[in-house]
Amino acid sequence: MIAETLSVGTELLLGQIVDTNAVYLAKSLSAIGVSIFFRTTVGDNESRIKESLQTALSRADVVVTIGGLGPTMDDLTKEVACDTMGVDLVEDRQVRSNLNALVAARGISAGPSFFKQALVPSAGYGQPIPNCNGTAPGIIVEKNGKIVICLPGPPNELIPMVEQTVSPFLAKKLTGKPAVIKSRVLRIVGIGESRVEEMVRDLLLTNNPSVAPLAKPGECHLRITARAQTDVLAGALIAPREEALRKRLGDAVYGADDETLEYAVVSLLEKRNLTIATAESCTGGLVAHRLTSVPGASVVFKTGIVAYANKTKEQLLDVGADTLQEFGAVSTQTAREMAVGVRNLDGADIGVGITGIAGPSGGSLEKPVGLVYIAVCGIDDEPRVEKHQYLGNRADIVTRASQSALALVRKVLLITDTT
Amino acid sequence: MIAETLSVGTELLLGQIVDTNAVYLAKSLSAIGVSIFFRTTVGDNESRIKESLQTALSRADVVVTIGGLGPTMDDLTKEVACDTMGVDLVEDRQVRSNLNALVAARGISAGPSFFKQALVPSAGYGQPIPNCNGTAPGIIVEKNGKIVICLPGPPNELIPMVEQTVSPFLAKKLTGKPAVIKSRVLRIVGIGESRVEEMVRDLLLTNNPSVAPLAKPGECHLRITARAQTDVLAGALIAPREEALRKRLGDAVYGADDETLEYAVVSLLEKRNLTIATAESCTGGLVAHRLTSVPGASVVFKTGIVAYANKTKEQLLDVGADTLQEFGAVSTQTAREMAVGVRNLDGADIGVGITGIAGPSGGSLEKPVGLVYIAVCGIDDEPRVEKHQYLGNRADIVTRASQSALALVRKVLLITDTT
Repeated sequence: MIAETLSVGTELLLGQIVDTNAVYLAKSLSAIGVSIFFRTTVGDNESRIKESLQTALSRADVVVTIGGLGPTMDDLTKEVACDTMGVDLVEDRQVRSNLNALVAARGISAGPSFFKQALVPSAGYGQPIPNCNGTAPGIIVEKNGKIVICLPGPPNELIPMVEQTVSPFLAKKLTGKPAVIKSRVLRIVGIGESRVEEMVRDLLLTNNPSVAPLAKPGECHLRITARAQTDVLAGALIAPREEALRKRLGDAVYGADDETLEYAVVSLLEKRNLTIATAESCTGGLVAHRLTSVPGASVVFKTGIVAYANKTKEQLLDVGADTLQEFGAVSTQTAREMAVGVRNLDGADIGVGITGIAGPSGGSLEKPVGLVYIAVCGIDDEPRVEKHQYLGNRADIVTRASQSALALVRKVLLITDTT
Repeated sequence: MIAETLSVGTELLLGQIVDTNAVYLAKSLSAIGVSIFFRTTVGDNESRIKESLQTALSRADVVVTIGGLGPTMDDLTKEVACDTMGVDLVEDRQVRSNLNALVAARGISAGPSFFKQALVPSAGYGQPIPNCNGTAPGIIVEKNGKIVICLPGPPNELIPMVEQTVSPFLAKKLTGKPAVIKSRVLRIVGIGESRVEEMVRDLLLTNNPSVAPLAKPGECHLRITARAQTDVLAGALIAPREEALRKRLGDAVYGADDETLEYAVVSLLEKRNLTIATAESCTGGLVAHRLTSVPGASVVFKTGIVAYANKTKEQLLDVGADTLQEFGAVSTQTAREMAVGVRNLDGADIGVGITGIAGPSGGSLEKPVGLVYIAVCGIDDEPRVEKHQYLGNRADIVTRASQSALALVRKVLLITDTT
């Protein structure tokens, strides 16, 4: 079964709101085995909605429209959908009486177009979709083997309607037909996208499962997608491919699906019963924030210091005044002393020190914007220090530096893991 | 001039990432007076990319594609665009030599498909678009009065390319034609969306300028949009409405357009020559991170402490052991002592203390998940303490608590501003 989504709303085209509904529908439809090849967005314009709907119906079995079901005059979707399908709209008594009750209860003054919300496809050509969080019901229109499903725009109305009515309806239509789509994402750090692709090129060439690389700031993802009759069968297609990719990429695979790098680090620390403390200058607390965003982080994270001022570095972190004088605040030496200092301050097992120039000002020829030193002192070890030169704006540099810092902590934890 | 955007990427169709690029482009193109009637999303499939591109070209003057420009085999957009337009791709010497330099500098091992990034439309049919934050340049392809613009997917690459090359290029094409759309966003904190709407209802009723409210986590935005022949004329429609809204809403309007709440706080501190220090428990460094994300924050921000452990609260922040014993770590008293402690530690003018339960575990009947105390000690003042009970998951609670903390700092700064 092939579906398309058609989002209706001028505010979407103008970029005033982000279309999270289409993203939600994409996930929900793939989860039950419906394929989506196209997604379209169109404004509140009758002829263009009709054109988009016709195009979508020419290449898909099911078209799901989002938005334009409300009581106002520029809510046109339901009318256009039924007109395009050649199905009449008739008033549904039950829906009309619900609307009457609502008007009475809330004292809404209902304009003439308010009650068009009670119109549904005529008998035999579809059904209303109950809306537990709003006034406008959705509709399912069916004729000549094609299906149009119209849903309202507010996510708190759309989501329960998909869960309670649309997904079960489509799943039933699919019965007996194959196709569950299942995905698994492998998350890789420390190797760039091109290099990853080179290392696993032969494993990217199949169709089922398919494997697609995706570059992210400071990391790379490989998405393995399989199609099969059941979830278990799709999983059985994914598992050996995942194993082959992991074998090829080794420790560079730090997690899967929604497991973030900070989650991987916190898990490793937990597993080894170790604690961590952070001393951050240019990253301004982002590493602490990422680590503490993991539920349960309080077991491994005790203290973080955001040491912007040199005075703070000296007084709290015991960085030598002579170190700052001789090498500067942005240097291998300062990063190292910050890492050791915060570890000693806290009595933690692992200390992290980060110092650099996030910009836009503060750079020089010798120490340009984007230069960042990251130090991690592990257990019994000389601190490891990495020097990075990042491109991009302040936010990019800070994000990438936090990513490198977490990756370095992970590396130190893996290397020193002798258990 | 009519444009369409075509987002390319199977990960978009599967709902694995949200298409913020299309939203950004929609805003940028409307801002220079380009109309968008359709937006399409398609997977990494050659024939379907081609079909979508042909459809888009049949109804628009300009098609902007997003994504699929990278070095891997499933990056197909540029090839399909030139094929559809009937334009050859040739290697650009400058781009190729940039790529060579990059490979040498970073020690990347470039696979055979890496250098296809140097391919650009043949002479007379377009130009490359420089990419200051990545390896893949964009391209503009022009033939027979139609234009295709191909941009890469990572937002930190796409945005500067639109600002520096695409918008000026299209604005030049448009010369002499009317219709600039201009927007101004007023950002409001401390009043909920419904209450804001109530306060300014009569100012929301016009069409040009139009005013639309939009709820955001912990704040509310009002977008004023005007359409006119020139930027100056559109600005003249916006200015009196902005003034009327600001008069009605007073200090609740903390900024405009891209000015964040942290920017407002840093600006106020700078203006008054004051410094700030933060002590965070449940927010885990997010307030420090938000403040230091503002360029130039180092003038006002010296030190931040992420004090997860009670020991850290006692030793670094001088919170009394008896306070922790008697009232608990999540209490008015602890928040207040954290704020005072970090101010004294640092010699800062303003101290912030935040303690609470971000969940998902750690809550009790008496102190449920979402309970957060925020203290701000200003100049010469008894610390102000706010108690909040937030709903939502760990990330929602942390985000809202950081928002409340910044709002409270702003309030203290405004109240004590006797200049």
